Amino acid sequence: MSDSTLVLLRHGQSEWNALNLFTGWVDVDLTELGRAEAVRGGELMAEQGLLPDVLYTSLMRRAITTANLALDAADRHWIPVHRDWRLNERHYGALQGLDKAATKEKYGEEQFMAWRRSYDTPPPPIERGSEFSQDADPRYADIGGGPLTECLADVVARFVPYFTEAIVPDLKAGKTVLIAAHGNSLRALVKYLDNMSDEDVVGLNIPTGIPLRYDLDENLKPKVPGGTYLDPEAAAAGAAAVASQGAK
Amino acid sequence: MSDSTLVLLRHGQSEWNALNLFTGWVDVDLTELGRAEAVRGGELMAEQGLLPDVLYTSLMRRAITTANLALDAADRHWIPVHRDWRLNERHYGALQGLDKAATKEKYGEEQFMAWRRSYDTPPPPIERGSEFSQDADPRYADIGGGPLTECLADVVARFVPYFTEAIVPDLKAGKTVLIAAHGNSLRALVKYLDNMSDEDVVGLNIPTGIPLRYDLDENLKPKVPGGTYLDPEAAAAGAAAVASQGAK
Repeated sequence: MSDSTLVLLRHGQSEWNALNLFTGWVDVDLTELGRAEAVRGGELMAEQGLLPDVLYTSLMRRAITTANLALDAADRHWIPVHRDWRLNERHYGALQGLDKAATKEKYGEEQFMAWRRSYDTPPPPIERGSEFSQDADPRYADIGGGPLTECLADVVARFVPYFTEAIVPDLKAGKTVLIAAHGNSLRALVKYLDNMSDEDVVGLNIPTGIPLRYDLDENLKPKVPGGTYLDPEAAAAGAAAVASQGAK
Repeated sequence: MSDSTLVLLRHGQSEWNALNLFTGWVDVDLTELGRAEAVRGGELMAEQGLLPDVLYTSLMRRAITTANLALDAADRHWIPVHRDWRLNERHYGALQGLDKAATKEKYGEEQFMAWRRSYDTPPPPIERGSEFSQDADPRYADIGGGPLTECLADVVARFVPYFTEAIVPDLKAGKTVLIAAHGNSLRALVKYLDNMSDEDVVGLNIPTGIPLRYDLDENLKPKVPGGTYLDPEAAAAGAAAVASQGAK
């Protein structure tokens, strides 16, 4: 195979990002700021000549709309699309719909950070049939409504096999692949690509709306560990903002 | 096979619809009215419980964006998508980019109507490398830049085989299929579905943004010839507006 290029794009700000709520699999929309971030992401790709040949998205509106807006801005709205639940955000269990600051106050900093960032501590499971569960969602009928909670290790376990089976063949064929997904599903993929330890991934934060480019060698190893953001300054500021969520 | 449902959706008003220009394969955007039409189309599907399982679009922005907006409004943004140039609008040849009223004045009513509506009279071919040709468009690189002009018979000849090979299997599997496409590619399909004569299709006009539902029997024959618009009154008014294009 020849070298190949992978572009990761975390969705722009969502309505629940703006409200500082745990979102997980709840299918909230982008804010106006989130839409602008998505358009800017597409403009960055176009300006830097990074033109995707194929798109992979989760089944969630905020990633799908981000991809639609970005690709339209890059004049690549017409490329083939594949959607799969394995790219979804981490399921946040019983925390879905809760305020992050209030959760931190209620359970304490240590428990809060364990749920948010530890590799293998899932939040308590969501109750079937409760307001923010996905039991009745037709898009997850094939998988029994999906998980009831997930830690990052669970996301790695579902996303990496899909990456290997579905996405790697496109990379090996020399295509430039865009993945439009979520903070934690992209952290899972970056952990795999960069061969990060379970401990190191805890400190990894991916900002919204800024394409992250990975040039991969013939063994799919990143030529630049951690990849390269198309707007490095904005990415640094964005990652710091993600890290501070939960602070008042 | 069981009965199956096909939904046809012509894109909302485009910038060149609004300017009364021949568009063809020029990849213009929707107007704000066109976006509102697309959202309304999705709302009609949701209100009437007509929920697509799979989407087929052309490679053109106005159809793709219409589908994105309609499916988002119907909460079906997550369904699988297939895009193909065979669903594209008829290529309007050398007329692409020309004003419809001025063309009618210059060439006369008879020639104008022959180009717009006759089954087998293509407009003059577009010049390679000219402003509104698609020679350099990467999405058509596999087909040599695409045709230089087309009559409706040419559109039937490219679209119907794709319908039979790619779309019919989904219909036979019992899926509700949404096709988001264009005035003339949808006329070509309706001619085939309703077994219309070359003469009768001349008088067929499909309005923008209003889903047209076909319930098909086990032989893919429409149970109601001509299908059923989800908003029949708006469809009648829209079809009349299409028929009168070219008038000042």
